[in-house]
Amino acid sequence: MAGITVSPTPLLKDELDIVIPTIRNLDFLEMWRPFFQPYHLIIVQDGDPSKVIKVPEGFDYELHNRNDINRILGPKASCISFKDSACRCFGYMVSKKKYIYTIDDDCFVAKNPSGKDINALEQHIKNLLTPSTPFFFNTLYDPYREGADFVRGYPFSLREGAPTAVSHGLWLNIPDYDAPTQLVKPLERNTRYVDAVLTIPKGTLFPMCGMNLAFNRELIGPAMYFGLMGDGQPIGRYDDMWAGWCMKVICDHLGFGVKTGLPYIWHSKASNPFVNLKKEYKGIYWQEELIPFFQSVTLPKDCTTVQKCYVEISKQVKAKLGKVDEYFNKLADAMVTWIEAWDEQNPSEGVVPNVTAK
Amino acid sequence: MAGITVSPTPLLKDELDIVIPTIRNLDFLEMWRPFFQPYHLIIVQDGDPSKVIKVPEGFDYELHNRNDINRILGPKASCISFKDSACRCFGYMVSKKKYIYTIDDDCFVAKNPSGKDINALEQHIKNLLTPSTPFFFNTLYDPYREGADFVRGYPFSLREGAPTAVSHGLWLNIPDYDAPTQLVKPLERNTRYVDAVLTIPKGTLFPMCGMNLAFNRELIGPAMYFGLMGDGQPIGRYDDMWAGWCMKVICDHLGFGVKTGLPYIWHSKASNPFVNLKKEYKGIYWQEELIPFFQSVTLPKDCTTVQKCYVEISKQVKAKLGKVDEYFNKLADAMVTWIEAWDEQNPSEGVVPNVTAK
Repeated sequence: MAGITVSPTPLLKDELDIVIPTIRNLDFLEMWRPFFQPYHLIIVQDGDPSKVIKVPEGFDYELHNRNDINRILGPKASCISFKDSACRCFGYMVSKKKYIYTIDDDCFVAKNPSGKDINALEQHIKNLLTPSTPFFFNTLYDPYREGADFVRGYPFSLREGAPTAVSHGLWLNIPDYDAPTQLVKPLERNTRYVDAVLTIPKGTLFPMCGMNLAFNRELIGPAMYFGLMGDGQPIGRYDDMWAGWCMKVICDHLGFGVKTGLPYIWHSKASNPFVNLKKEYKGIYWQEELIPFFQSVTLPKDCTTVQKCYVEISKQVKAKLGKVDEYFNKLADAMVTWIEAWDEQNPSEGVVPNVTAK
Repeated sequence: MAGITVSPTPLLKDELDIVIPTIRNLDFLEMWRPFFQPYHLIIVQDGDPSKVIKVPEGFDYELHNRNDINRILGPKASCISFKDSACRCFGYMVSKKKYIYTIDDDCFVAKNPSGKDINALEQHIKNLLTPSTPFFFNTLYDPYREGADFVRGYPFSLREGAPTAVSHGLWLNIPDYDAPTQLVKPLERNTRYVDAVLTIPKGTLFPMCGMNLAFNRELIGPAMYFGLMGDGQPIGRYDDMWAGWCMKVICDHLGFGVKTGLPYIWHSKASNPFVNLKKEYKGIYWQEELIPFFQSVTLPKDCTTVQKCYVEISKQVKAKLGKVDEYFNKLADAMVTWIEAWDEQNPSEGVVPNVTAK
């Protein structure tokens, strides 16, 4: 019998880019081939630009090293971090797609409790294409998932939900711990598969990890700046945290939802806790001021675009965090540069319809 | 060999009462015997007080019917609902224990994914005895659980957590849907075991179900009033919701945490959706006003006890919801009566140390 294999078109094939920051050959893509091959990859090469990064055959990709970043952004390249995975946000800026998925190169395909390979990207797409519920908590978690719904007592007027801007995925095996926790619990592994997706409620901040993250670039892209980290900066490993706090405040203001939970990836190796401690120690201290700051940020009604919101936050960073450390003045300036560079790279977005602040 | 069986003392054996509202023989307790027998039961008999409720042998219990409620509370018995499971809150009031677990008589022992019987009470006790994290979301859920911790980016100053006031458990099989959803999805069953306990963040409301619920009576007992429902009232099936909204606002004010998730019970039979619709329809309409009301309640700094908070909410109910329906004036009065009755039944609590409002 001549079999006819019908490959279903991957969801959002022409509307999603996969952004990967790296300093090494991308052998890890072999394991992801069944899931990633149909998509376009944007590889952001960190570190020495003369090094050649090998990409397994058959993948459709563009690769940008530091020379490319400098050439494309000119003096505005100063806002893109060097020698830190924060450089990945350059990929968000030069993408022309509606959705972004970003993943670290030490993340592999995880298995669900039935032993089946998890298509992380497919779950992220599901998360992004269904609404969020930021205004009221549903005790059966994602009400739009098959087999679930809104429970008794959930206001009917809120059941339409809100557009989903971000899908934050989790990690089995090596948990995303800070250096002190890594040092105290070197052998702890995350083995618990929690079969849930939930919306982080409006007004609640969370630690966003950039390891396994998807977002709607059209809705929230310009807020996904990963800050100034790494080479020449006093801090590292707070790139995704910074983006998460800025992004969440803006989503809350504009009425967008942020989900966390499924999908899991398999995080293969823990980074060195001693190196991490050096990168983190100022952040560990500063975050005690950053969280109250972000909890108290309010955005005026006329901040009706992500760009306007972001520039407004940069002003508040300068006004309120500049006294914590001179670094935050530099960061605030870089935030403005980032938005200028974003708008240069994405000129058509200037006419994106405004949304109504909520 | 003569074997010696060492039965470990059940956790909180002398500090926890199990409250069960019922109108029928309590055969369902047979299945719970291994878990409940060491505890004292407070059975609140609803409906005809002349009916004899059979309790399986070997359980230590007190049973209160309507005549008992009237005798014990006198004219203040008017605040206790009749012909509605809201009557269960009488049991909270007459208990003298620090912790309460309440369960419906159509709830049975569920199995975890490994096929093992779930000791729901044990999980609730774990939830109540470990802190909550209402001020910042932890993406690996309960950080106090074995194998988990706070993730990178979680402020260290918040890792002590907050005292846990409430543990809200979930249900496999029949989900807790409102009448319209029951009518639309009569065959939907909850089969998803989500292996997580999480804190409902500060400032977020949720629909609290009274089917499988535990709380720290010392911390939050007087807020657990299940309102005026059933006989002579225009509404039913909003008893637990009302308690949940009042309780959450007070916990947020006093700095207590509320958890939801594990443990599951097996909810055996769905109530009649047509009967439910009759009970609920005003609530479905009113809740559209109730949620914005509770989202906007603020309690003054001098509300330093649950009782003071609760009486303050009753005033705001009268001022702001009285115009929605005359029922809310009656309910506001009953809320005050409830607190008066609570203080009469629990005279020593007058000297409970004040907590500092946050």
